[in-house]
Amino acid sequence: MTKSNRINKLRANMAEKSLDSFLISSAENRHYFSGFRGSAGFLWITHSEAILITDFRYTEQAELQAPDFKIIRLGKQFDWLNEVLYGKKEFRIGFEDLSLPVSNFNSILNETRGVSERIELVPTSSLADEIRSVKEPEEIELLTKAILIADHAMESTAEKIRPKMSEKEIAWMLEQTMRENGADALSFDTIVASGTNGAKPHHKPTDRKLDYGDAVTIDMGALYDGYCSDITRTFVLGKANEKFIEVYDTVLSAMEVAESTATSGMTGKEIDGLARNIIINAGYGDAFGHSLGHGIGVAVHEYPRVGPFSSDQLIENGMVFSIEPGIYLTGWGGIRIEDLVVMENGHPRVLTTAHKRELIEL
Amino acid sequence: MTKSNRINKLRANMAEKSLDSFLISSAENRHYFSGFRGSAGFLWITHSEAILITDFRYTEQAELQAPDFKIIRLGKQFDWLNEVLYGKKEFRIGFEDLSLPVSNFNSILNETRGVSERIELVPTSSLADEIRSVKEPEEIELLTKAILIADHAMESTAEKIRPKMSEKEIAWMLEQTMRENGADALSFDTIVASGTNGAKPHHKPTDRKLDYGDAVTIDMGALYDGYCSDITRTFVLGKANEKFIEVYDTVLSAMEVAESTATSGMTGKEIDGLARNIIINAGYGDAFGHSLGHGIGVAVHEYPRVGPFSSDQLIENGMVFSIEPGIYLTGWGGIRIEDLVVMENGHPRVLTTAHKRELIEL
Repeated sequence: MTKSNRINKLRANMAEKSLDSFLISSAENRHYFSGFRGSAGFLWITHSEAILITDFRYTEQAELQAPDFKIIRLGKQFDWLNEVLYGKKEFRIGFEDLSLPVSNFNSILNETRGVSERIELVPTSSLADEIRSVKEPEEIELLTKAILIADHAMESTAEKIRPKMSEKEIAWMLEQTMRENGADALSFDTIVASGTNGAKPHHKPTDRKLDYGDAVTIDMGALYDGYCSDITRTFVLGKANEKFIEVYDTVLSAMEVAESTATSGMTGKEIDGLARNIIINAGYGDAFGHSLGHGIGVAVHEYPRVGPFSSDQLIENGMVFSIEPGIYLTGWGGIRIEDLVVMENGHPRVLTTAHKRELIEL
Repeated sequence: MTKSNRINKLRANMAEKSLDSFLISSAENRHYFSGFRGSAGFLWITHSEAILITDFRYTEQAELQAPDFKIIRLGKQFDWLNEVLYGKKEFRIGFEDLSLPVSNFNSILNETRGVSERIELVPTSSLADEIRSVKEPEEIELLTKAILIADHAMESTAEKIRPKMSEKEIAWMLEQTMRENGADALSFDTIVASGTNGAKPHHKPTDRKLDYGDAVTIDMGALYDGYCSDITRTFVLGKANEKFIEVYDTVLSAMEVAESTATSGMTGKEIDGLARNIIINAGYGDAFGHSLGHGIGVAVHEYPRVGPFSSDQLIENGMVFSIEPGIYLTGWGGIRIEDLVVMENGHPRVLTTAHKRELIEL
């Protein structure tokens, strides 16, 4: 069974760090390691136990979704720690420092102090997140479905975009198309940035109506059975001018170079550099202020990191991440193109199917 | 201007706790205190400065949305702390311990240690959250609009529910109706729980098709211009049987008692008790396992807390919160009814307009 396989990997990582237990607090890892999809709860995993602690609202659902876990009903705060730590004298607990709030950390400290003085809390988010970054075949299938839903919505909606439509209307058309084609939800708020709004990489759709000649950048994704997709395309309403084509082709070559020359064994920083160099050499280095990409799976942003400040984690086969170079010029607009790729046999295989250069003029 | 009014209140609270600055990290408080709606960034508020730190993707948007703030572009992690702490010898920094992850806290500790040994980090989430819990008239207006959008969708969709429709289909009808009537998004994932699924308070809609005689609980909300609504109703498809009516009327009286006898100056725990006693006296105490309500505003769950474990924060005029008693019986189903109220002149005014008892049989 997939979940027990994941827990075994986690236990191997725990052993390497001499951890007696791992406390999972993030929604993504709760779901990934147990199957439970409720919005609240904790997983407590030791070398012999797997316990899911959640509140009254979710106990029935937890039993159905996480059959491998013992369920404890959450009472007040962290008093369940007394139960799971009963009789333990020395205990090293790994926890997700990237998501656990300080207030919870302090409550855990207080609660465990009552149990034993020799309990140690070890910040080790990456222990679980790194397992999630390498996808299983079933996960690639779900990601592929999530991707196709978004790709289809991107292409079919692009054909319907006309002058006088607003950014908000276009965002809603995209969402309806994805939902009617099987998306459970959006994987994140859709970005529709037209004209000079395109200079804002994360622009929120407004009532601004599109005009003939406007560029429009659309960045969106579907959530399908717990998995996220993410795609960006930039179009022109009508005829693309010289400047647009120059900038577009720079972004596109940056993307193509990264997609064709990245190899497993590189760091995320090195892959980022493949694309960034093309943009720097074209004179737009300062206009590409974000990372080249990010891992994606049950969360829309997860490991591996693929940016100029990424750690030394190596890119491996099975990792799925975005490649999304962009150029943003205040007062002019912006262009971003984004594909998702999976590393296979040492090289990226592009999962995104929507057209790029062939479809810039609407 | 509203925002500077809010910052002044924050500064008064900071002075009471002898804080030199307050670091805001949560999306809700970034938006509430600055107007900025990007998904990443920090506010750094001292008694003389108001600074918004965000990354490349948002700097242009930040300048437009937060005109009262000085904008600093985020570089690597927390190195901006060097800039804002320059020349400071002793400094007490309040921070949002309820949301700041441990990893960020540790990074801040490292960064500030380089600046001075006498910098103290003080966990004080409530300092900002309590200000937000008392709504301004403009906020009540936005909440009222968000509420009307959800109320309308609840009533108009209820009339269209027929046997053979699935929970998912109903959820999508509700969402489309809200979006077409002005909602920017859902304020949370819609709950449609039919038949025995009703026993799970936070059930996620499935492909289960409704049958004649089924009860169905719908819990949903709209996001309108940054403000959230939240409403729950339970219906029967066809004729309500005796048991349904007995449980429904118990939940309804619990709600009516709370709505008619709550007064400002009570604690959230006392208001919870008003409704809980009715349910306990009817013999269903164990079947009402969640809080009576929660504050609502820019977040769907915020202060004040209205539950059996709530702190001693007093309920004041201007606070907006839900009153949502429920009874859940495994194997049978569940009933929950939820209104939003605002405290005015010492008493709750019900903001929710959708029918209750008159509309139980569809």
